[in-house]
Amino acid sequence: MSGGGPESPRPLVRQIRLASRPDGPCAPSDFTHVETTLAEVEPGEVSLRVIYLSLEPYVRGRMDARPSYSEPMDLGDVIDGVAICEVMESKHPGIEPGDLVSARAGWQSHAVVSGRAVRRLDARVLSARSLTAALGVLGMPGFTAYAGLQVIGRPRRDDTVVVAAATGPVGSLVGQLARLQGARVVGIAGGPVKRALLTDKLGFDVALDHRAPDFSGALGQAVPEGIDVYFENVGGHVMDAVLPHLNKGARVPVCGLIAGYDSGIEPGDHDRLPGFMRDVLDKSLEVRGFLASQFASDHFEQFLDDVSGWLANGSITYLEDVVDGLENAPEAFIGMLSGTNLGKLVIRVGPEPTPTGGRGELTAEC
Amino acid sequence: MSGGGPESPRPLVRQIRLASRPDGPCAPSDFTHVETTLAEVEPGEVSLRVIYLSLEPYVRGRMDARPSYSEPMDLGDVIDGVAICEVMESKHPGIEPGDLVSARAGWQSHAVVSGRAVRRLDARVLSARSLTAALGVLGMPGFTAYAGLQVIGRPRRDDTVVVAAATGPVGSLVGQLARLQGARVVGIAGGPVKRALLTDKLGFDVALDHRAPDFSGALGQAVPEGIDVYFENVGGHVMDAVLPHLNKGARVPVCGLIAGYDSGIEPGDHDRLPGFMRDVLDKSLEVRGFLASQFASDHFEQFLDDVSGWLANGSITYLEDVVDGLENAPEAFIGMLSGTNLGKLVIRVGPEPTPTGGRGELTAEC
Repeated sequence: MSGGGPESPRPLVRQIRLASRPDGPCAPSDFTHVETTLAEVEPGEVSLRVIYLSLEPYVRGRMDARPSYSEPMDLGDVIDGVAICEVMESKHPGIEPGDLVSARAGWQSHAVVSGRAVRRLDARVLSARSLTAALGVLGMPGFTAYAGLQVIGRPRRDDTVVVAAATGPVGSLVGQLARLQGARVVGIAGGPVKRALLTDKLGFDVALDHRAPDFSGALGQAVPEGIDVYFENVGGHVMDAVLPHLNKGARVPVCGLIAGYDSGIEPGDHDRLPGFMRDVLDKSLEVRGFLASQFASDHFEQFLDDVSGWLANGSITYLEDVVDGLENAPEAFIGMLSGTNLGKLVIRVGPEPTPTGGRGELTAEC
Repeated sequence: MSGGGPESPRPLVRQIRLASRPDGPCAPSDFTHVETTLAEVEPGEVSLRVIYLSLEPYVRGRMDARPSYSEPMDLGDVIDGVAICEVMESKHPGIEPGDLVSARAGWQSHAVVSGRAVRRLDARVLSARSLTAALGVLGMPGFTAYAGLQVIGRPRRDDTVVVAAATGPVGSLVGQLARLQGARVVGIAGGPVKRALLTDKLGFDVALDHRAPDFSGALGQAVPEGIDVYFENVGGHVMDAVLPHLNKGARVPVCGLIAGYDSGIEPGDHDRLPGFMRDVLDKSLEVRGFLASQFASDHFEQFLDDVSGWLANGSITYLEDVVDGLENAPEAFIGMLSGTNLGKLVIRVGPEPTPTGGRGELTAEC
């Protein structure tokens, strides 16, 4: 049972594990780097070589002991994460060595997982400009944008849509999709570089820097007819500035409160909940938290059709930030939580397989 | 143009008008009683004799200068209200003297309104046990319950549904409809008399008194599997007790915050909004304010079919409190805001027309 033969040596696995729960902001010392050997592949399982690892804000929530929308990780666990992988060995029907799959492989170079927990990359994903699209615009972040906007936001022509964290992998697609549906889109991001990207590269109508001293006033000027959809994924002072401008019947999809993952949403100097509930009533607001997974069975196929088509014809684009080397994941993750990266953050853990088809240039766009 | 002939004397109109905006709780001195003569009926208009006047919490919001979901009344305006009326004179096609209609006639004995603003009572309403049903269980309060529960609450079999202000005209129907759909229903009301009504007369599974000192603990014991739908129409400390028990994916239709109409929602000693938004995200909560009118075109006909049928076959019942005399409307309204009435509050302003059909006993049930 144990030990591989000489023709199949069990590879060394590099892993990053949870060393301690963050005390305030997440720090490099909360992670530990470990090397071990890969487990045997049991019946029903597959072994994977990780190529691209996605860094996602929700993982910050799982580092705390407090349950969030997903359960806490235990100390010593490999850090959670979705990855694009190549199948090395398979004892699961329908999956073959060499297949490209997405799986929750975690922050490690190789993994053994149940064959039922991997998904072969769809042809619509393989036809994209880069394999990494499967982790961003054609993966869960993209679907989060799509489902939250179509199911909860429901923008109508000439609606004003405000998007927080608008250069991020979710926000950047939300804004572009809303524009395609005829809405006027105001994007909010941190700093002048991101702000410029919104109008110059992503086609937003107006871009605002939430770090600018006159942010609240600028927002008011940018939405003379009020706000019909506020795609909330930041929390904190951006939401405070947005609330007074919400129109009657406004929709607020809530898909992430990144400010709260790490630094905490700053409490006000008085209880704002009564006023908020009063607004919910007076303005018939619809405020709805969601996980993209809850909409997958109804909307994922249409999402892949729509977004892969719009990518192919140039109607939408995406930004990504590919960092080389698993060992750099903690630093990149910490930077992401404080907003230093641009676009979808991906770690290149291992080389792509030699191309077999007509795949083009894989360089990250941004 | 002015003055009626001797064969059509213009009747004296008794009116109750807004004398001052409430400073804190609404007081009798905020109302003034006026007598005047009825206006001429111009082309397109109808004159009405008010039979039953509905007292509604939303009117309290309109007494303030601050806009709520409806615009403020002006000082000197006749107080706003929906009524069941008999048409006296009509210069509008399709409406005849003697027709029974509902109209926003206000707190007065007679009114002249546009013919387009009156609605003839539907046969399904006229067949109900009492004409007053048109103002309660088969009127806007009933439709508020129906639409809020079906569109936003969406209870599933074995869900736990918690209803605030559960003996009120909205809450009492919400609870009964949820039970018909197989949910387990917990009603919250103020005081032991109302509490007993919930289980003894309205068929709730569990009833709680929100004035009891151990209310919060009792609520926790009453919902061992958490809360899937919270029909919010109170605000204040009831909501505080409910929030920690909301399950993932819970729905919170918000149709009225009566605590806030008069006494104000009591603010906590710290800012609860960040924690609330964290719950919205972590639990995928759906919190949605609504006015029944926004759902009328899609759901009103089905509502009349369903609820008139369930009334006729005894599946549901309703409570009402009929007070005689327009002059008693202010006192009854003030009592309603502090929770002293039981069931739908209606003022009998004038006599019903002599029955022409088989209408039964009109005595209020409660």
